[in-house]
Amino acid sequence: MDTATSNADRVPRTDRGRKTLRKLLDAAAREFAERGFHDASISAITRRAGVALGTFYTYYDSKDAIFRALVRDMSERVGSAARDAVAPGMDAVEVERAALEAFLRFAADNKALYRIIDEAEFVDPESYRDHYETIGRRIEERLRVGAAAGRLRPELGAPEAWALMGMNVFLGLRYAIWAREGDPDPTAIARAANLMLEQGIAARAKG
Amino acid sequence: MDTATSNADRVPRTDRGRKTLRKLLDAAAREFAERGFHDASISAITRRAGVALGTFYTYYDSKDAIFRALVRDMSERVGSAARDAVAPGMDAVEVERAALEAFLRFAADNKALYRIIDEAEFVDPESYRDHYETIGRRIEERLRVGAAAGRLRPELGAPEAWALMGMNVFLGLRYAIWAREGDPDPTAIARAANLMLEQGIAARAKG
Repeated sequence: MDTATSNADRVPRTDRGRKTLRKLLDAAAREFAERGFHDASISAITRRAGVALGTFYTYYDSKDAIFRALVRDMSERVGSAARDAVAPGMDAVEVERAALEAFLRFAADNKALYRIIDEAEFVDPESYRDHYETIGRRIEERLRVGAAAGRLRPELGAPEAWALMGMNVFLGLRYAIWAREGDPDPTAIARAANLMLEQGIAARAKG
Repeated sequence: MDTATSNADRVPRTDRGRKTLRKLLDAAAREFAERGFHDASISAITRRAGVALGTFYTYYDSKDAIFRALVRDMSERVGSAARDAVAPGMDAVEVERAALEAFLRFAADNKALYRIIDEAEFVDPESYRDHYETIGRRIEERLRVGAAAGRLRPELGAPEAWALMGMNVFLGLRYAIWAREGDPDPTAIARAANLMLEQGIAARAKG
């Protein structure tokens, strides 16, 4: 992909500009998810967004640029969904339960998420890797805070953060993207995963 | 993808046939991983395998067919790497440690694995889903056996199996595919993940 300016340096200053940008990103998510990167087109994105073609170029140079911006946008929205779910006073284990439940709901409401992130592996490998490195660092930081508070084991680090991220990603794949009739709901899935984090999978010692 | 006959009904009956099939699958793995499905060609696969073009058609009808066979082959090899690592008498938690360590080593030795499975999501979604459903069922069965033996919590099921699969896949992504200088080795990573399974991430109760 080209490495030209992204929208990072063209952040809209007005409410109207921010709304237009949001419309473009949401339209791009639908277009890329439905047609794939190669068949997607800028004109279809602007049509879906209901904005003029010229408006697109106010924000992005190319299809590559909006794809890259979209991956970054999704990383941020996954992060803010988790942050919004965390209430003051929650302990570190409960934070992980709330973050996973919020992620499962986010993925169910944004089914384009997996397809777009997964296509980034081929279309823009750097964005793909950044996405997981970013989320991995966020989780590692939560583990660090939980350990500092004495609630989590002190030796937790990147391996545990990546393990936890993988749990969440695969639970989202199975229970949000590939959801089936009769599946447990996001609350139940998040509880089951959280019990693994709290206690592990081993049976209680029989004394 | 077409749904015509795969190699399933053309299993070679001789050692030589089995060797040729193995060569074709290994060559296909390199070709698909390096060039991607769309740019890969049957003639390049046979060149890499050192077999005649006509030989290809003894086993597969099309590029689609060998791709599908390759995904299935990789699911089987991931499974047999795990099975081979399990020694008689290992308890259920130790089985998961050994299976993960074997998987990390397999992924490091077969870096084509992730790219091919991940591309299946776009090229052959049914194979992609089958791959994870198959591995998920295998893990769920191990958890069932461990619970029956009293070593694991009795209520473990599909959610815990998918969580465990996600842990393993993401640890492979980070520590085999994206390995960095100075990373912990597969033994250490498998131990850290296994401690999460044995004890969870919570600090020990302070009594």
